[in-house]
Amino acid sequence: MTTDVRQSRRKPRIAVTMGDPAGVGPELCVRALNDPELRKIAQLVVFGDAVVLKEAASATGQRFDFPVSDASQWRTVSHSDSVVVDLCAIEPSQFKPGIISASTGQASYEYIDAAIHAAQDGSVDAVSTAPISKEALCLAGLDYPGHTEIFAERDGSKRWCMMQYSEAITCTFVTVHCGYADVPALLTQERILDVIQLSAEALSRIRGRPPKVVVCGLNPHAGEAGLFGEGEEDSIIRPAVEAARRAGIDVEGPIPADTAFVATKRAATDVFVCMYHDQGHIPVKAIAFDCAVNTTLGLAIIRTSVDHGTALDIAWQGKADMGSLFQAVRLAAEIHRAR
Amino acid sequence: MTTDVRQSRRKPRIAVTMGDPAGVGPELCVRALNDPELRKIAQLVVFGDAVVLKEAASATGQRFDFPVSDASQWRTVSHSDSVVVDLCAIEPSQFKPGIISASTGQASYEYIDAAIHAAQDGSVDAVSTAPISKEALCLAGLDYPGHTEIFAERDGSKRWCMMQYSEAITCTFVTVHCGYADVPALLTQERILDVIQLSAEALSRIRGRPPKVVVCGLNPHAGEAGLFGEGEEDSIIRPAVEAARRAGIDVEGPIPADTAFVATKRAATDVFVCMYHDQGHIPVKAIAFDCAVNTTLGLAIIRTSVDHGTALDIAWQGKADMGSLFQAVRLAAEIHRAR
Repeated sequence: MTTDVRQSRRKPRIAVTMGDPAGVGPELCVRALNDPELRKIAQLVVFGDAVVLKEAASATGQRFDFPVSDASQWRTVSHSDSVVVDLCAIEPSQFKPGIISASTGQASYEYIDAAIHAAQDGSVDAVSTAPISKEALCLAGLDYPGHTEIFAERDGSKRWCMMQYSEAITCTFVTVHCGYADVPALLTQERILDVIQLSAEALSRIRGRPPKVVVCGLNPHAGEAGLFGEGEEDSIIRPAVEAARRAGIDVEGPIPADTAFVATKRAATDVFVCMYHDQGHIPVKAIAFDCAVNTTLGLAIIRTSVDHGTALDIAWQGKADMGSLFQAVRLAAEIHRAR
Repeated sequence: MTTDVRQSRRKPRIAVTMGDPAGVGPELCVRALNDPELRKIAQLVVFGDAVVLKEAASATGQRFDFPVSDASQWRTVSHSDSVVVDLCAIEPSQFKPGIISASTGQASYEYIDAAIHAAQDGSVDAVSTAPISKEALCLAGLDYPGHTEIFAERDGSKRWCMMQYSEAITCTFVTVHCGYADVPALLTQERILDVIQLSAEALSRIRGRPPKVVVCGLNPHAGEAGLFGEGEEDSIIRPAVEAARRAGIDVEGPIPADTAFVATKRAATDVFVCMYHDQGHIPVKAIAFDCAVNTTLGLAIIRTSVDHGTALDIAWQGKADMGSLFQAVRLAAEIHRAR
């Protein structure tokens, strides 16, 4: 008995947010709660709606017999194992699986909000998030392009970046959720240097050694010596790379993005610094789909996320793969331990 | 004897241009000439400089005992096997391996020029090109961003596009060699429809059945219902896709570029229509490096190319892989037969 409690205390306590109720989040949370491997790694605290989770469990043929606590009480109850924190944000009658709305967007935000509070007051060690719909958030009047920006705002950090992590390929991002045409104006030497440094710090902790960082160019062929583009490689990216090198980071670039991700280069690189969303998301999903984890570097809160969306077309059908959520919880636990 | 001649006549006659003399082109051409598998597929006519090819053969430990003909004579000589057309454009003393210059750029253009003439007068059935340096072309005062544009200009076609072809993944391009920031202004409904139709026609010939075409969006998440970008997906891309569908093409999109190239989607798709260079070059090189082929659709001349660059860092060292040139010649022969 004493041994059990001590073991459970050693396990990191990871908040898992349920994501958009209409998406694959609820069934993935139930799958996570039922997963014996995951429960060895962490004590899960699922922030969601108990009635929705129960119905999702029933629809996808899963057990649901976990302790449920309410938002005001859960911190005071001692739990030796995983627990569902019932936020009563939405009921199954208020939405249809596969169809997002202002209500599902509002509910998905409330799960995140409660998990951030719990991380900030030390009740949980890290947060792993199931997928939300940015469109649903927008319908609810919540103007956030994604999890990353919600966490960054609440954390108050001015220096943060998104990372997509997997064993095979890891990318960090100078810009993320903006239009294609907005990217060039958002690239600054200071921002690129910040992202190189955040990337080197994170991979150094995860790998336990100085990492190799590769920085991608913006234009085709990294500008081909100024022939394509407005010279962004020479005027903005290269000075940032050189400043990072002077600061002692093992960094190369800017190199052409299309040759950056070939197999031999991937094997020799710990992290790729990407200038825009699809530059890094395309190779990560092509190579490590279902096992990559999304995380935000530079925050006081440890936060990881699945790298897929709400998958509305297969939601509540038991078809969703838990691989990415499993890896998200595992990485959150690893980063917590490395701190 | 008669049988030999008849067999050789049945083989397609494929021009192979030597590419930039300072790059990996010369050694790859010698390797191609020495390859028994390739010589079963095609009769090679290498447009280059005999002295450069001989020196590259010697530097990389290869045999060089092929018939050499000069530019004015080669058409009149009957060759039952491969031949080198000696254009006397540059000598080994005029350049160093690994270092491009105005001279190497000028020479690489002359090989292409002669091969295009040969294709236009029917002396060869198709052209496969070894890599050139756009920077070297520029030094020589030749303002072409790449092979594609040279062939398109000389062909006179107004309606053409680049395709990167491999068994695993095939992409076509609405824009190619321009700066990142120039892309949005180049996207028009008419151009996208042209590329969808060229893609469908080409894959229909290669696969022998109606192909499945997938069109990528421009912005992250294909704009996420208008939240990212200037609405290019709804105002320009979607109308082109719908017009193509009305014309009987099995086409889907615009879909988010980052989920387009996951393994299950690749398996179900014959060709991806990409809005810009790196959107398609990143996944092709990540997945099919060394076996993808670059080709230009919509031209009277059949033209294929390796999908790698001059690789100056390993040029003349015998390290370059011939996989992509092999596939380029094979695809040229296949397209010639399908016509």
